[in-house]
Amino acid sequence: MTGSAPAPFTADDYRARMERAAQAAADAGLAGLLVAPGPDLVWLTGYAPPAATERLTMLVLAAGQDPVLVVPTLEAPDARKAAGASVMSLRDWTDGKDPYAVTADLLAGSGRFGISDNAWAMHLLGLQHALPGTSYASLTTALPMLRAVKDAAELELLAAAGAAADRTFEEIRNVRFAGRHETEIAADLDALLRRFGHSQVDFTIVASGPNGANPHHEVGDRVVERGDMVVLDFGGLRQGYGSDTSRTVHVGEPTDEERRVHDLVREAQEAGVRSVRPGAACQDVDRAARAVIADAGYGEYFIHRTGHGIGVTTHEPPYMIEGEEQPLVPGMCFSVEPGVYLPGRFGVRIEDIVTVTEDGGRRLNDTTREMVIVD
Amino acid sequence: MTGSAPAPFTADDYRARMERAAQAAADAGLAGLLVAPGPDLVWLTGYAPPAATERLTMLVLAAGQDPVLVVPTLEAPDARKAAGASVMSLRDWTDGKDPYAVTADLLAGSGRFGISDNAWAMHLLGLQHALPGTSYASLTTALPMLRAVKDAAELELLAAAGAAADRTFEEIRNVRFAGRHETEIAADLDALLRRFGHSQVDFTIVASGPNGANPHHEVGDRVVERGDMVVLDFGGLRQGYGSDTSRTVHVGEPTDEERRVHDLVREAQEAGVRSVRPGAACQDVDRAARAVIADAGYGEYFIHRTGHGIGVTTHEPPYMIEGEEQPLVPGMCFSVEPGVYLPGRFGVRIEDIVTVTEDGGRRLNDTTREMVIVD
Repeated sequence: MTGSAPAPFTADDYRARMERAAQAAADAGLAGLLVAPGPDLVWLTGYAPPAATERLTMLVLAAGQDPVLVVPTLEAPDARKAAGASVMSLRDWTDGKDPYAVTADLLAGSGRFGISDNAWAMHLLGLQHALPGTSYASLTTALPMLRAVKDAAELELLAAAGAAADRTFEEIRNVRFAGRHETEIAADLDALLRRFGHSQVDFTIVASGPNGANPHHEVGDRVVERGDMVVLDFGGLRQGYGSDTSRTVHVGEPTDEERRVHDLVREAQEAGVRSVRPGAACQDVDRAARAVIADAGYGEYFIHRTGHGIGVTTHEPPYMIEGEEQPLVPGMCFSVEPGVYLPGRFGVRIEDIVTVTEDGGRRLNDTTREMVIVD
Repeated sequence: MTGSAPAPFTADDYRARMERAAQAAADAGLAGLLVAPGPDLVWLTGYAPPAATERLTMLVLAAGQDPVLVVPTLEAPDARKAAGASVMSLRDWTDGKDPYAVTADLLAGSGRFGISDNAWAMHLLGLQHALPGTSYASLTTALPMLRAVKDAAELELLAAAGAAADRTFEEIRNVRFAGRHETEIAADLDALLRRFGHSQVDFTIVASGPNGANPHHEVGDRVVERGDMVVLDFGGLRQGYGSDTSRTVHVGEPTDEERRVHDLVREAQEAGVRSVRPGAACQDVDRAARAVIADAGYGEYFIHRTGHGIGVTTHEPPYMIEGEEQPLVPGMCFSVEPGVYLPGRFGVRIEDIVTVTEDGGRRLNDTTREMVIVD
């Protein structure tokens, strides 16, 4: 709900990003890029409209052309306050005018354009109709790595977000679990993330006992009991950059099987992180983690990909998944989060954010990965 | 961030809505509807995934065919808990599979489909690629009035949301304005809306003095002073249905000009509401309000449309705007919110939600529209 820039970048930073994006588009054979409100726009310009709506806002980028932001007249004053506003021009349109015609005037009448994944279908259809000679590809398809390699300032912000998530875990491990609702512990996580500087909390998963076997269970009314495994997975945005970490704790002493499964996931996560090095493929990280779990006979219980990128969102390319051959490049940041989910019984997931360095993977989360016993 | 149904509707209610939507699509010559997470999906099924993401979730509706929800395997357990889950079937897909191929299997290979306005461009491109013989239209283009006519239960929920917004105004008019930051008063509005039952606050505009001349100004660090006009515009969702009301207050005694402009906007708003009757066109409401302001010589300072629909969102069709010939139908609900904005000086806006009845417009907001003097 805020129009302010999320991070301490200057107009020059945004100019450099816009030039880099326009050049990458040209190199990929695209006639230009169409950038919708959301993570692409905030990363390129520092501008975040209050909401994405039926009123078109779209940044038009093309190599050798000045960036232009098409924006509703009503929102132009806010757009002018964005940190990147001085390095683009604004083309505003008033209610009742056709914003697609305004945008079409800025585009070549033919060629292929990249468009933000999350641009509204309504707006894409409007552009396709206004410019029947053009074709489109989503940014994830056309330029999947546009935001993937982080610069030094971005890495610092991601490290700070990770440290705040770590402090949250160090506090939450000391709260009472047994006898409290999952929702109450989730509220504790939310408050802690904010206390340690998060302005936005995206998820606070507290999945106890059998709920832990559903990787996307968020929270429920279940009361946590002694003997439960509890998957904790929490994160959000701090100064515009994301955190995302998971630890699985146990209320009281675990059984041998619970300990064995937790150890297995820990080894898988370690193997995934160890596989990170420049030039390895994304799918190699998935394979390394998955092999450990499969070799132990639990392969069918690891039912999601191993990781996802993180930056101005908590969920973006690159994806650590079979079939993704994109090579790792220093500066990329992503999660490594294998898990084992035993239906009706319990789940275990361990997750760190990892960045690629010349020397291999460096974790941005660093709380213990041994099983923590809580009360 | 919640997966729960927002309002007390049953599986039968959702079945009826899905059947009505599929029939409306067929009547409009569409081969079917593709419904993305967001207001369309929650209205049709009661299902709200935690977030719209790059993982495809899409409801496929076609006349004479059972509704099918395409959903990521990870999210299927949550989808099964939705109030409308029992009247549709689920087709889940796991990471690494092609969700567009899964969806394409459910569609005729040709024909025109309606798709949610806010579906991701990435997903529309995936469908266009998987089914080159198909074409698409946004739901607002193809079936703009799909959610526009509210049933009795929906009207009750909208009236309750409006009453909660009115209680918020009755409280806020008694707080201190002079000497406080706009942000502080906005926080009061947020807390009051929640106290009166809102689960989501969408906007809390506090636009004082010259900020009031920017209709989309949200809040800022400006300190409110004696002598300021202050535009208040606030709303959100209560039990899944929206509120949205504006009043313009004055800190201490207004000048004659301020009083005159406020009276003018009040008359324009009254004229807009009076013009509401079944069979009138949406643009007639805009014209009625605009004529009052134009006749007084302020036409150039009324720089936005007169209103927008409201329901499971705070912003949807029908739009009260020149060129919109859609006739009004009993059960439609929308804002009537003319304004005058004098650059660098002040603004005035007065807004009520109005529903169309056989006898004309009935307001769902009912606090005084006289200028309220605050401290």
